[in-house]
Amino acid sequence: MGGLFARDTAAAPLGAGRYAGAIAPGWDIRGNANGGYLLALAARAMLLECARTDPVTISAHFLSPGREGPVETDVRVLKQGRRFTTASATLSAAGKPLLAALGSFGDLAGGKAAAERMHSPPPELPPPAQCFRHEPARGAPRMFGQIDLRVHPDDAGFALGTPSGEPRVRGWLRLPDEEPVDTLGLLFVVDAFPPAVFNSSVPIAWLPTVELTAHVRARPQPGWLRACFTTRFVSAGFLEEDGEIWDASGRLVAQSRQLALLPQPG
Amino acid sequence: MGGLFARDTAAAPLGAGRYAGAIAPGWDIRGNANGGYLLALAARAMLLECARTDPVTISAHFLSPGREGPVETDVRVLKQGRRFTTASATLSAAGKPLLAALGSFGDLAGGKAAAERMHSPPPELPPPAQCFRHEPARGAPRMFGQIDLRVHPDDAGFALGTPSGEPRVRGWLRLPDEEPVDTLGLLFVVDAFPPAVFNSSVPIAWLPTVELTAHVRARPQPGWLRACFTTRFVSAGFLEEDGEIWDASGRLVAQSRQLALLPQPG
Repeated sequence: MGGLFARDTAAAPLGAGRYAGAIAPGWDIRGNANGGYLLALAARAMLLECARTDPVTISAHFLSPGREGPVETDVRVLKQGRRFTTASATLSAAGKPLLAALGSFGDLAGGKAAAERMHSPPPELPPPAQCFRHEPARGAPRMFGQIDLRVHPDDAGFALGTPSGEPRVRGWLRLPDEEPVDTLGLLFVVDAFPPAVFNSSVPIAWLPTVELTAHVRARPQPGWLRACFTTRFVSAGFLEEDGEIWDASGRLVAQSRQLALLPQPG
Repeated sequence: MGGLFARDTAAAPLGAGRYAGAIAPGWDIRGNANGGYLLALAARAMLLECARTDPVTISAHFLSPGREGPVETDVRVLKQGRRFTTASATLSAAGKPLLAALGSFGDLAGGKAAAERMHSPPPELPPPAQCFRHEPARGAPRMFGQIDLRVHPDDAGFALGTPSGEPRVRGWLRLPDEEPVDTLGLLFVVDAFPPAVFNSSVPIAWLPTVELTAHVRARPQPGWLRACFTTRFVSAGFLEEDGEIWDASGRLVAQSRQLALLPQPG
């Protein structure tokens, strides 16, 4: 629990499935805590209550924006199975629910399974030093000062006022001080990149997430993570964003999908 | 509530968020109730308790196989918002939890939004009469006698002992007696097709779903639905299956993703 991310997602047991924590400074986008960070806060408490090592699949519904300060997570274990433990949780601040989650937790240690078939490769990226660093000095929200995020030059148009036209964002990510990203950290990573739709021709300033689901496949090897996020369907006032996270060894470590609202103009 | 599907997913309020229902005959795959059918059963109770018309996004974790007979859904409303109501639920049989769900419900009436961008087209399919009917007479489980499911000839190899090699299944679906599929019905449809991975080179007989998430975009127009399911990553003992459902007017009405276990051989 040495790194900043681990400290800032800590959960202290209060008994009866309740855990105390806090939304720490710096994990926000213009005041509102990042959704993946909130999910990691809740999942930390769920992991502890389930006495498991890794989130395997977890979904969160975002109920209210979260601000810096104390939070509480109430966890209810629904089934303790041989392979997975399933639990639901609510993360609240001063009694107001911010996020509801449902997840299954297990143990993702171990190597490759008998059958492995990858029908898509990891994204091809120039080395981090040749990518666009998305950081506060260049207008990015302050959260991007806490992490090291490098965007593929072809996908950095959104940050420079010239969206690529293709709703895709590929890039590298690591935590400060090279804090290793564990499977809990992946729940943050799947929501840590600027929205892919910022590179489309749809005018969007703000994109509230309704729901986010992450599937964690494996524990990441140390080093840079590479990620690819895409949006294919902007319709009926909604859009989805799909994410894939790969580790330094080229292994798929997580997949994600979120449903976001497209605020009506005017 | 005239059609078979509507009757077989009915929920009767018992008070205090509890609803009685039953796993009806014929919705099983070799004895175990279809996951999407179980989800629809739970979601019916959630919709009623939330007093909303449409599921917008819902996730289910599958805890135990469901068999024919009475079930109860316990619903807890977590937030009643202006646009969405979020609730959690557990579907149980004789006190044993079969499924846990978390969903947000709203009203999907209304036409197109200001911005629509579709970066993928609906699947191209030959007319239903030129597709392969997946039915019990041809070895399909009896559930496929309750629905009318036509698979693209190029994707029907799995049923004929000659998998295409590409983990994809495209096809048409309608309910018997042309019962219209509403947004609740879409929760069944996203899990109603044979697994895409049956067309891969991975030897699989049985594929337990850990988690299924559906996003419902719009109310389907009457008529045949067309669907496309794909699997891209078989790794670490897991695989995902992504689905898209389009209505007769060519509109995307639902997206889904599920995480399934790849049982170890031997």
